[in-house]
Amino acid sequence: MADSTRAQKLDLVLQHIRTVPDFPSKGIMFKDICPILKEPKALAAVIDLFEEHVRQNHPHTELIVGLDARGFLFGPLLAQRLGIGFVLVRKKGKLPGPTVSVAYTLEYATAEAEIQADAVQPGQKVLIIDDLLATGGTLYAACELMKKQKAQVLGCLVVIELKDLRGAERLPVPVFSLLQN
Amino acid sequence: MADSTRAQKLDLVLQHIRTVPDFPSKGIMFKDICPILKEPKALAAVIDLFEEHVRQNHPHTELIVGLDARGFLFGPLLAQRLGIGFVLVRKKGKLPGPTVSVAYTLEYATAEAEIQADAVQPGQKVLIIDDLLATGGTLYAACELMKKQKAQVLGCLVVIELKDLRGAERLPVPVFSLLQN
Repeated sequence: MADSTRAQKLDLVLQHIRTVPDFPSKGIMFKDICPILKEPKALAAVIDLFEEHVRQNHPHTELIVGLDARGFLFGPLLAQRLGIGFVLVRKKGKLPGPTVSVAYTLEYATAEAEIQADAVQPGQKVLIIDDLLATGGTLYAACELMKKQKAQVLGCLVVIELKDLRGAERLPVPVFSLLQN
Repeated sequence: MADSTRAQKLDLVLQHIRTVPDFPSKGIMFKDICPILKEPKALAAVIDLFEEHVRQNHPHTELIVGLDARGFLFGPLLAQRLGIGFVLVRKKGKLPGPTVSVAYTLEYATAEAEIQADAVQPGQKVLIIDDLLATGGTLYAACELMKKQKAQVLGCLVVIELKDLRGAERLPVPVFSLLQN
């Protein structure tokens, strides 16, 4: 797409992200992406921008892997645009059947991310999607899950990246973010 | 669409639902919709069938309201097809800013469903979407949330309805299910 079109789409996305102070706890400036979902043109812009990036940089992507729960809002839309499948990474205990899990640390606790054991095949080229990159804990766990299953992670896609938290440095693959803050 | 096309699409969806016995607890036959997400043609079929239903029966729908987390997999796709917005119903404590919540009972506990206070406007025509209708507790809570905000719920959409649990009888609006079990 033309640079001016891309800039317009990014601006539309930016206009539909709301900063909510002190959520979920004091001192955190929460980036609320709900307004994007409410405005069909803004949501379409997000998917247009992701689609362009994937077609240009990762044209052989075979699967989109999305993180529970806000990655589910964008991942299936992108996967449908690309004509490929979508795989769910969930918190432990939510997925039926044989699963594979990885523990990861949150600020004050640990959690486990899980996929179904047959969700990805060895060698499959995947992209991982979520709404936001903060410290990168969950995206890192998703990368580890893919490694366990011998899938090839081409990169991570997020709508917003909180640069100060340096999550991208922690991840073993490139991160593509529409907006940085 | 032609009846034969519709039947083919329904069959494709059915082929991509897996029954997992004893999940999440003994005696429950869990309906796993993950295979639908992995097969782009099956996911497209789900959205085609929902879209046809909405255009024929609820052409003035203004918003799709989706339930955390599996309603997020289908809702934004349907909303984009219809060119309308998507609103998130989440478990309490997940949504930033002023919210409205409703308590509901699960098998052995109570939970609270929540929306952002500005998510819907009085009089807005909405459809509520989730993957599955079992006893209908969460869908009922979502209907109550909409009532609190004076929105008009036109109906509920689900991929599968577990008829034996009679969830539809509990709900104040019609339920459209692609498949019944």
